[in-house]
Amino acid sequence: MVYPHIYRKLKRGPQVILPKDIGIILAYTGVSKESICIDAGTGSGWLAVSLARVSRHVYSYELREEFMAIAEKNRKILGLENLTLKLGNVFERIEETDADLVTLDMSNSERALGNAYGALRQGGMIAGYLPHTEQVKTFVEALNAQGFSDAHTVEVILRDFLVRKEGMRPTNMGVWHTAYLVFARK
Amino acid sequence: MVYPHIYRKLKRGPQVILPKDIGIILAYTGVSKESICIDAGTGSGWLAVSLARVSRHVYSYELREEFMAIAEKNRKILGLENLTLKLGNVFERIEETDADLVTLDMSNSERALGNAYGALRQGGMIAGYLPHTEQVKTFVEALNAQGFSDAHTVEVILRDFLVRKEGMRPTNMGVWHTAYLVFARK
Amino acid sequence: MVYPHIYRKLKRGPQVILPKDIGIILAYTGVSKESICIDAGTGSGWLAVSLARVSRHVYSYELREEFMAIAEKNRKILGLENLTLKLGNVFERIEETDADLVTLDMSNSERALGNAYGALRQGGMIAGYLPHTEQVKTFVEALNAQGFSDAHTVEVILRDFLVRKEGMRPTNMGVWHTAYLVFARK
Amino acid sequence: MVYPHIYRKLKRGPQVILPKDIGIILAYTGVSKESICIDAGTGSGWLAVSLARVSRHVYSYELREEFMAIAEKNRKILGLENLTLKLGNVFERIEETDADLVTLDMSNSERALGNAYGALRQGGMIAGYLPHTEQVKTFVEALNAQGFSDAHTVEVILRDFLVRKEGMRPTNMGVWHTAYLVFARK
Repeated sequence: MVYPHIYRKLKRGPQVILPKDIGIILAYTGVSKESICIDAGTGSGWLAVSLARVSRHVYSYELREEFMAIAEKNRKILGLENLTLKLGNVFERIEETDADLVTLDMSNSERALGNAYGALRQGGMIAGYLPHTEQVKTFVEALNAQGFSDAHTVEVILRDFLVRKEGMRPTNMGVWHTAYLVFARK
Repeated sequence: MVYPHIYRKLKRGPQVILPKDIGIILAYTGVSKESICIDAGTGSGWLAVSLARVSRHVYSYELREEFMAIAEKNRKILGLENLTLKLGNVFERIEETDADLVTLDMSNSERALGNAYGALRQGGMIAGYLPHTEQVKTFVEALNAQGFSDAHTVEVILRDFLVRKEGMRPTNMGVWHTAYLVFARK
Repeated sequence: MVYPHIYRKLKRGPQVILPKDIGIILAYTGVSKESICIDAGTGSGWLAVSLARVSRHVYSYELREEFMAIAEKNRKILGLENLTLKLGNVFERIEETDADLVTLDMSNSERALGNAYGALRQGGMIAGYLPHTEQVKTFVEALNAQGFSDAHTVEVILRDFLVRKEGMRPTNMGVWHTAYLVFARK
Repeated sequence: MVYPHIYRKLKRGPQVILPKDIGIILAYTGVSKESICIDAGTGSGWLAVSLARVSRHVYSYELREEFMAIAEKNRKILGLENLTLKLGNVFERIEETDADLVTLDMSNSERALGNAYGALRQGGMIAGYLPHTEQVKTFVEALNAQGFSDAHTVEVILRDFLVRKEGMRPTNMGVWHTAYLVFARK
């Protein structure tokens, strides 16, 4: 896989959300320069910094200090002032309110949906990143139970295509699954 | 296909660039709140308004007044002040300079690469939207001839996944091709 | 979707198994001219006739007479003498033994795995056609419980590619999901 | 990628045609127990032996003796009596006539289409295996010029799907391109 230029300078610690999924999260949540975003868990911070580049402010929660350190490096590499990295547990508490977007990438993320709902403004969007189909089911059921609407699940296959003198074709191998993306609206 | 919420209120005239491709353009070009973007041709303006929501300013060129009228409606629906719709031909002239991004979605777009190169800052990105493989080849060869670097082509398959009581599965049918996306850097 | 020539003359009643999935069943089970195959349920008989064209004999079970009538028409269209259409319930009984292949395309097909196991020779293959992920899980667990080995699940995306004067590209839309195929060995 | 059981015992020399493509060739050409098949070039013989298992006779042409030796091993492993491996050049001559199927997997295979046409019965099928899009265009144009009908191109993405206690999902990476398959009829 060829990485977009902006991501090549970033550090990679724990499994990152790839640019293909970040792009679809941007387009499908409609995040904009006015948006306040909440992100959990931070991990290496690829999604957090990507959101920070296009939104008003991002608050990103992470439980583990060693991951936060990687994300902090990435924040500095891109010179972002509007990204607040927070050591904290969204299962227990999300401090912000009236957010436009909450993104969840962590185990058992359905348990954070109550706090996410409380943190969002009416009409705000939620995006879940879920590797397994069983997680998708649990997450969608919890979304509906929590009062979210328009739950919608997609998977993104981005295939690299070689353009060379000897001929054009897709690459032979590539990443054809990372996670299902689930979107819904408060 | 389920449309993201933000796009459901927009008008559709000529063939639009779908959110799946818009998202990948956002992530792969690294557009940000600081970015100046140039877009041609406008068409219904879906890409132009999507860029305007996350960047500093977008200048979008279109040859046909009836398309511009649709794009103007979409600009107003989203209340965007930082999108300038221009009746003009990028084959002849691009007035802006030091742009961070040029996006090209039109026939023979390779003929605009000279003007696009002139309009971009060093390190600025270009994104081409090209339905056919032959166009991809012509475009990539012209990119290289013009002095762009890192040309990279992808295709995006976004598959909707149903989560229902009767079971989970991808939808049976869907859009599995719109266009190849070609990215490069000045 | 463009149908292969051989299938264009066949009748379609209930949902058929498409040639893309039939092809993968042929290759992944390794059916040959020596093979004895058992198929349930028959439906329109597309899989049954496809198997009969390349194997020694096919016994195909169906519960509903109106489906059997369609399959019988398809059997005659192709002039197949080695396909026996049987009105019967594989949940209750499979009469044949020492079969090389059992294919299952019906609701709750995991309940037929005991009889399928009994009908197969040692080393014989089983193929399940399952639209939903939950069915896949149930089926694979039942396969393992029954003593089958090497359970392996795939999905097949066959994308049509247009080659025309105006340019080459995949078709815009198409069938990107029918069912998951699960294979295992006795 | 998990290989079907039947292929696991075969030798691999030069790049083989994978079972996913073999399966689609079987289904889309409608090869049957009555069919006479011509195959070129043999390579490791995976397609040749797969065809031989389900058809009357296969004649497979190869230019290089070291490849023929691998194919001969595979023929013996499967105990096939109805596969004739021939050292020969199909650009110059195909000795058989009234064949039901010709499969072509080699550089410049369009140059063999005249001889392939001569070798096929009326209504016989041809299948080309072509890695690059430019080859597809050349091949399809040559098919039409030669008088073949119904030219149709597909690509096959077979995605492995994991079913495990920790959850179900597609594998992360895999083979998402081997070659385009082109089918046509005399």
